[in-house]
Amino acid sequence: MFEFHVDAVSGAARAGTLTLPHGEVQTPCFMPVGTQGTVRTLSPNDLRAAGASLVLANTYHLHVRPGEDVVGRLGGLHRFMGWDRPLLTDSGGFQVFSLEGSRTVSDDGVEFQSHVDGSRRFLTPERAVEIQWTLGADVAMAFDHVVPGGADLPTARDALDRTVKWLERCAKRHAELSDSRTVGLSDGKRLTVRPSDGPTVRQTLWPILQGGAHRQLRIEGLQQILNQAEWTGLAIGGLSVGEPKARTYETLELLAPRLPPAVPRYLMGVGFPEDLVAAVARGVDLFDCVAPTRNGRNGTAYTADGPLNIRNAAHRDDARPLDPTCDCETCTTFSRGYLRHLFLAEELLGLRLLSLHNVRYLIRLTAAMRAAIRAGDYERWAADWRRRYTQGETP
Amino acid sequence: MFEFHVDAVSGAARAGTLTLPHGEVQTPCFMPVGTQGTVRTLSPNDLRAAGASLVLANTYHLHVRPGEDVVGRLGGLHRFMGWDRPLLTDSGGFQVFSLEGSRTVSDDGVEFQSHVDGSRRFLTPERAVEIQWTLGADVAMAFDHVVPGGADLPTARDALDRTVKWLERCAKRHAELSDSRTVGLSDGKRLTVRPSDGPTVRQTLWPILQGGAHRQLRIEGLQQILNQAEWTGLAIGGLSVGEPKARTYETLELLAPRLPPAVPRYLMGVGFPEDLVAAVARGVDLFDCVAPTRNGRNGTAYTADGPLNIRNAAHRDDARPLDPTCDCETCTTFSRGYLRHLFLAEELLGLRLLSLHNVRYLIRLTAAMRAAIRAGDYERWAADWRRRYTQGETP
Repeated sequence: MFEFHVDAVSGAARAGTLTLPHGEVQTPCFMPVGTQGTVRTLSPNDLRAAGASLVLANTYHLHVRPGEDVVGRLGGLHRFMGWDRPLLTDSGGFQVFSLEGSRTVSDDGVEFQSHVDGSRRFLTPERAVEIQWTLGADVAMAFDHVVPGGADLPTARDALDRTVKWLERCAKRHAELSDSRTVGLSDGKRLTVRPSDGPTVRQTLWPILQGGAHRQLRIEGLQQILNQAEWTGLAIGGLSVGEPKARTYETLELLAPRLPPAVPRYLMGVGFPEDLVAAVARGVDLFDCVAPTRNGRNGTAYTADGPLNIRNAAHRDDARPLDPTCDCETCTTFSRGYLRHLFLAEELLGLRLLSLHNVRYLIRLTAAMRAAIRAGDYERWAADWRRRYTQGETP
Repeated sequence: MFEFHVDAVSGAARAGTLTLPHGEVQTPCFMPVGTQGTVRTLSPNDLRAAGASLVLANTYHLHVRPGEDVVGRLGGLHRFMGWDRPLLTDSGGFQVFSLEGSRTVSDDGVEFQSHVDGSRRFLTPERAVEIQWTLGADVAMAFDHVVPGGADLPTARDALDRTVKWLERCAKRHAELSDSRTVGLSDGKRLTVRPSDGPTVRQTLWPILQGGAHRQLRIEGLQQILNQAEWTGLAIGGLSVGEPKARTYETLELLAPRLPPAVPRYLMGVGFPEDLVAAVARGVDLFDCVAPTRNGRNGTAYTADGPLNIRNAAHRDDARPLDPTCDCETCTTFSRGYLRHLFLAEELLGLRLLSLHNVRYLIRLTAAMRAAIRAGDYERWAADWRRRYTQGETP
């Protein structure tokens, strides 16, 4: 369980297979984001039809609403959201540090305000792990201190040091939960962690590497993380948060040769087609991003010939599908003209049909990358893909 | 084509089969409403899974946006909305008279203002038929003059007389369109009505009986309609527009013995579960209503034990489906607790899942009515159904 096998490489690009309690995940893999326990507008059947093998849900959002207790009483996150394939939950760190205005950080944890009811909450490494254990995703993420992309060296070092210390506490708590049958939680409640007798290996914990834009911090941070334990996966955080793309790529190139080859590498929050293609070339295996669904709701559809805006008048009488190369329900059923009508008429079906297409687009893209890697031909494939995507046959 | 066969009766209730160009429709039948060429939040696959056999679309809405020309160029309404089963379009009369503020009625037609761009438009019986011909539904409705439920006798008589005269013009235009290959339209354009050689019978026209709450007008109006032609179906309009339910039922009881038995009877705009059960007992075969999808979007779900509001705190930890007797995707996949979470979190999936359930509920209800009619036992079945629906096992 939690094993990762590298099936093929092409340059730094890797094709792998990750085994999780709820199924296998082939990499490169794009995870659709189900922030509140639902990938916006899409049903589990839609996600299966789109070929999704791993879905991300947000610990912060589910903690403040409906609360992990409710999810736990309703059978855990898989049953709650009707998704039987692998799930990953983030730790809440990104939301607490990036999305919320008022918060207080100490070495113990972070006090913040719920965006739902304004209540004061306190999140520690232990609580973040307990909440994720109650949610019950296949992969939990360690609680990290996130700083803005442009943070100076002292700020970034302070956050990195804290993240590394918190990682130790996360791992300790996660091991206690994994080893015991019923445990007391930090909030005074008790949690039964095993529905049946005998050991169950139901969740793994992955660290998140921070360090901002500082090369030395990234290298030191990675070493400290790798010194702590043998991890089943490792996430790269704090990239794609507004810094120039060249900086993101440099950091990935810096890390690639230093990362253990047999561990899957997850680049958090990255999800535009061109970013996936570039990051896989630099050794990344896993991605998540709200972009395909958010862009879909805004009327932007990814196609082999680049993105298009479905509201454009050019699509009014266009009987063609969004992307003639696509096999999704949207493209096999509806014309651009109809989809444009749905957007102009503010029909909810339009948001759903473009979200479905964009998710399917990214999953087809990862499948194409995997095939190119297995063929040992990733670089040429990526150049061809990029040429068509940026220059396109469609204006 | 357009034949209706009464398969069984139980009291005044009828079970029938209606043959239309795009398939057979078993009655009693509930039509989900796709106002703008989409049943709000639902895809054609959802509608098929819900068992829908006939869908209604609104001529007025499609005329003002995207325009019937666009729909025609994109292959007609079936292809436009990706629906391969029977379709019915209303005539626009109801919208022009009921939904719009500023309009001018003459014997020739109605001048009104588009709610989309404020442009002045003129709808005549001929234009209403031409627009529907271009849309290409299996069933088109005659253009009628609708008056409020409480209209006095002179007002109601005036509107009825106009509706009957307009019916003759609608039928004349519809016959011309059906008989010719290319025809000039009232707006000066020309329309090719047949993609291939040879006669095609692709659309039928149904009259709408008006007359408000006036018994004598209803009887006279029916006679005038029946004197004009042999119709393949007949709609009863101007009911369920705010009058007491007893008045609706009286009118249906007045008409039932006077209506030709071999013609399907369509009660327009009626769609609450209890209204369907009561109207079928009075000889109605077809229904349409936005209620199941509108109620679904408001968080109300129909169940065997009566309607429930999914936002209620009682559903927070409830692992049961909306309706344990239901076989829809919503009920076989999700708990009430999860659905409540979707509504509180304002997730679009919630609107869709309750809409899907409510449509499936009504279609299962019509199937149960049909079975009871075939068993010759409708009255007892309806009493049992009503008892459980109003008194319920679920609070």
